[in-house]
Amino acid sequence: QSGLIVSGGLDLAVAHYKGEGGGSRTQLISGGNQNSRLNIRGREDLGGGWYAGFELEAGIAADTGAGLASNTNNQVSGIVPAGSGNVPSLTFNRRSIVGIGGEWGELRLGRDYVPSFWPIYLYDPFRTGVGFGGITILGTTVTNLRASNSIGYFTPGCDAVCKGPFAQLMYALGENGSGSAAPDDGRVAGLRLGYGAPTWEVSIARSKTTSAAVADFTQTSGGGFLETKWARLMLLVGENRTGRPVAPLNNGTRAPFWQLGALVYLPVGYVPVAYTRVTRNDPDSSSASKISFGYVYPLSKRTAVYTTYARIANKNALAIPVNVGADSGPTPEAGRGASGWDVGLRLTF
Amino acid sequence: QSGLIVSGGLDLAVAHYKGEGGGSRTQLISGGNQNSRLNIRGREDLGGGWYAGFELEAGIAADTGAGLASNTNNQVSGIVPAGSGNVPSLTFNRRSIVGIGGEWGELRLGRDYVPSFWPIYLYDPFRTGVGFGGITILGTTVTNLRASNSIGYFTPGCDAVCKGPFAQLMYALGENGSGSAAPDDGRVAGLRLGYGAPTWEVSIARSKTTSAAVADFTQTSGGGFLETKWARLMLLVGENRTGRPVAPLNNGTRAPFWQLGALVYLPVGYVPVAYTRVTRNDPDSSSASKISFGYVYPLSKRTAVYTTYARIANKNALAIPVNVGADSGPTPEAGRGASGWDVGLRLTF
Amino acid sequence: QSGLIVSGGLDLAVAHYKGEGGGSRTQLISGGNQNSRLNIRGREDLGGGWYAGFELEAGIAADTGAGLASNTNNQVSGIVPAGSGNVPSLTFNRRSIVGIGGEWGELRLGRDYVPSFWPIYLYDPFRTGVGFGGITILGTTVTNLRASNSIGYFTPGCDAVCKGPFAQLMYALGENGSGSAAPDDGRVAGLRLGYGAPTWEVSIARSKTTSAAVADFTQTSGGGFLETKWARLMLLVGENRTGRPVAPLNNGTRAPFWQLGALVYLPVGYVPVAYTRVTRNDPDSSSASKISFGYVYPLSKRTAVYTTYARIANKNALAIPVNVGADSGPTPEAGRGASGWDVGLRLTF
Repeated sequence: QSGLIVSGGLDLAVAHYKGEGGGSRTQLISGGNQNSRLNIRGREDLGGGWYAGFELEAGIAADTGAGLASNTNNQVSGIVPAGSGNVPSLTFNRRSIVGIGGEWGELRLGRDYVPSFWPIYLYDPFRTGVGFGGITILGTTVTNLRASNSIGYFTPGCDAVCKGPFAQLMYALGENGSGSAAPDDGRVAGLRLGYGAPTWEVSIARSKTTSAAVADFTQTSGGGFLETKWARLMLLVGENRTGRPVAPLNNGTRAPFWQLGALVYLPVGYVPVAYTRVTRNDPDSSSASKISFGYVYPLSKRTAVYTTYARIANKNALAIPVNVGADSGPTPEAGRGASGWDVGLRLTF
Repeated sequence: QSGLIVSGGLDLAVAHYKGEGGGSRTQLISGGNQNSRLNIRGREDLGGGWYAGFELEAGIAADTGAGLASNTNNQVSGIVPAGSGNVPSLTFNRRSIVGIGGEWGELRLGRDYVPSFWPIYLYDPFRTGVGFGGITILGTTVTNLRASNSIGYFTPGCDAVCKGPFAQLMYALGENGSGSAAPDDGRVAGLRLGYGAPTWEVSIARSKTTSAAVADFTQTSGGGFLETKWARLMLLVGENRTGRPVAPLNNGTRAPFWQLGALVYLPVGYVPVAYTRVTRNDPDSSSASKISFGYVYPLSKRTAVYTTYARIANKNALAIPVNVGADSGPTPEAGRGASGWDVGLRLTF
Repeated sequence: QSGLIVSGGLDLAVAHYKGEGGGSRTQLISGGNQNSRLNIRGREDLGGGWYAGFELEAGIAADTGAGLASNTNNQVSGIVPAGSGNVPSLTFNRRSIVGIGGEWGELRLGRDYVPSFWPIYLYDPFRTGVGFGGITILGTTVTNLRASNSIGYFTPGCDAVCKGPFAQLMYALGENGSGSAAPDDGRVAGLRLGYGAPTWEVSIARSKTTSAAVADFTQTSGGGFLETKWARLMLLVGENRTGRPVAPLNNGTRAPFWQLGALVYLPVGYVPVAYTRVTRNDPDSSSASKISFGYVYPLSKRTAVYTTYARIANKNALAIPVNVGADSGPTPEAGRGASGWDVGLRLTF
């Protein structure tokens, strides 16, 4: 045994959601400001600049102690747990990787974030919860955050945050047999390219998931940030695309979005703020705009209290609630608005 | 990372159960003397008397390595895992909380014990297993031990064991939407009040769960203990109440109970002993009496071997087995007796 | 808290499988060379040569972060998770034991390996993955590796590897009630006897599982190894037997097997190699032969890269793929061959 590190973070908030025409809901949510998780990792120096390492990270629904959903084959059939009423137990759904690296970069195997996830995460001042910027990324595919059975390459020193010119490649397997109806279902191929300077970063990424159901799903994202004395300014642009019109998307195939955001530094704490705009090429030319702002007050380096408010205005056929997933609150009627706020406590350990 | 503590306890016993008219069963049971669990917790000093902390605790079915059932919304629909034949995997079903505290007390969010659980636990010499005193608390609700989505307040220094005058408040959310059939289902409100002296404690508690199925469930409990040189003497009284007659309870609505118990200290080890009496206001005026005793022999501060025996006499429509849950052994015929013994090893780490 | 140890191992490989007449499949597999797992254990010195200890070990599907299947009652009804499409979450499926020991040996309770597992593991140069020697042990029962609800005895100092004359006994409970249709279903009784010298070991073991479905399942295994300067030579023999003809086994009742294997030491790394032969007393007198070889190159004491190749030739009614379980690749047509290779990275922590 050597150098095993156990760490994590927990975040719980009281949240209230309203979806016009859909009612309201008061909830305890896990992850109003950061996602709750338990992490186990380690790294071994192999000499000559080489190293080996691993990381296991389990998502935690801290409001109930349960786990979070995962997917084993990058296809709808691989959702964990099966059955719509089932609540997930603990798995290392967030990350399960082993890797080997050196001056040439790092080769990685397992379940990891897809390349096009990182700009959506890094250039969003909220990243999760009520203010979350990636409002259209969910509901369309099981690979917009992570992929199982992946082989990855990263340029040296690169993971989430990278310095200098950098690249991330991913190729993930759906693991269907050669004789199955859709042998390549669940295959993911992705690339992220960027440049990280001390006070700014730019990057662009694309991940394509082979999917018989939607004639392939392509997630594109990019943007950057600029660190100034009084704020971190962020731009995020992207598009989710299916290869054929899909009924749940009102027969749209493309949903481009952009977001302007910032972390505005105050004498104590900071104010995250963002404006997000998404359009969809469905027959109704639907669109939505979201404005989010909050305040994060640090109690220490590792602990903070926070509050967030967001409001989304849907137009035509869109009916996006203010948050995503199980914590999204009531879905508004199509073309109507939704709003929400939270007050929470986050800590890391 | 700072001050992360991993601890826990494991307890396994060979147990034999008999339910008159229902047969017998020999089992390996997890938790004859204490519940098997894995705990991760941490606490950070924030200065000025303030602190932040967290606790995650997973129940373990140590006889099989599986997890234990949980509930995500304090309603029958939130039982984890769904499906009667399913065996649970690991979750932090026992506790999942973050909290912030100071001289004013502690505010806590997450899944935690309901206030009315603590007297049932603290004033029972057995607490779990064959001798368990809270024989009527299970089977009627999903919130008699813990509630998810809870907001809690504790007076300073108070958790399970508290000193001086103390109070615990809990308000937990069922998280149904405003437009659902029963918007408040799963809402829990509870209060515990007491006084803890160096050698004695008294407390009383009540937790009320909003439930459309039974027109609300109310669990009341109270009692105290007195520590003497030769024994810890305990009194536990309480009542489980539904708002309307319920068929599984033979159309009863109230089941008051009381228990006299003691830990009798021997030169080596101690003898837990208890007499429990429960009545139910069903048309048959059913009742049950249980006598339990055992012996716990310490091998070290952290490790002990133990044995327990208990026998319950049911009258009229009651058919309570000698233990609860998956380890209860065969259910006797209504009005008949049940008995059981175990021999086990418990350790903490 | 004292002496809690967290350790484990992760192993991921890219594997390609082919089953003649069944197609091919490329996969990321967890455990090409060793099984991925997370282990928590501890041991307490009780004085006078006595000790108490525990071990919890969770299997990890490192390619997806999910858990691995378990079984709670040593019967088909106890498979975790229930439902064929369900993917398991984390449990301590590999081991969940508490024990107490002294000069007289060790008594152990919980979920543990059956005695007849150990020769199959210890005398196989591959133990898991493409080259795995125990090709016929799976698919017939749920107790060929481990049993839940077990009571075990080991001679002093014995666990997997033992020194001098040694013995392991196991008795495990199915936990059915006395009035059920098959009260003894899932009961396991097993014994392992052997002698471990500094450079060689011999042992023989048998585990019998009471099973109404197959009129009891008996797993017998034995063999030994001899450590020389240039290789560890291994012999494994065994038999799986059912008490009555079973349709999934083409109405066979006995499948004896033998394997010659070796770890051949090179100046750097080693070459595992094995030849395995299994026959089955079905009406077609089916049989299969497998040849496996690989190379393991150490990057450090704890980390290695490896590659494996194996090919199996089935005759008559047998249709064994080259690996077992979820990572077995396509099943060939009866009487035809299958092959596979992998390239992977394993590390321990």
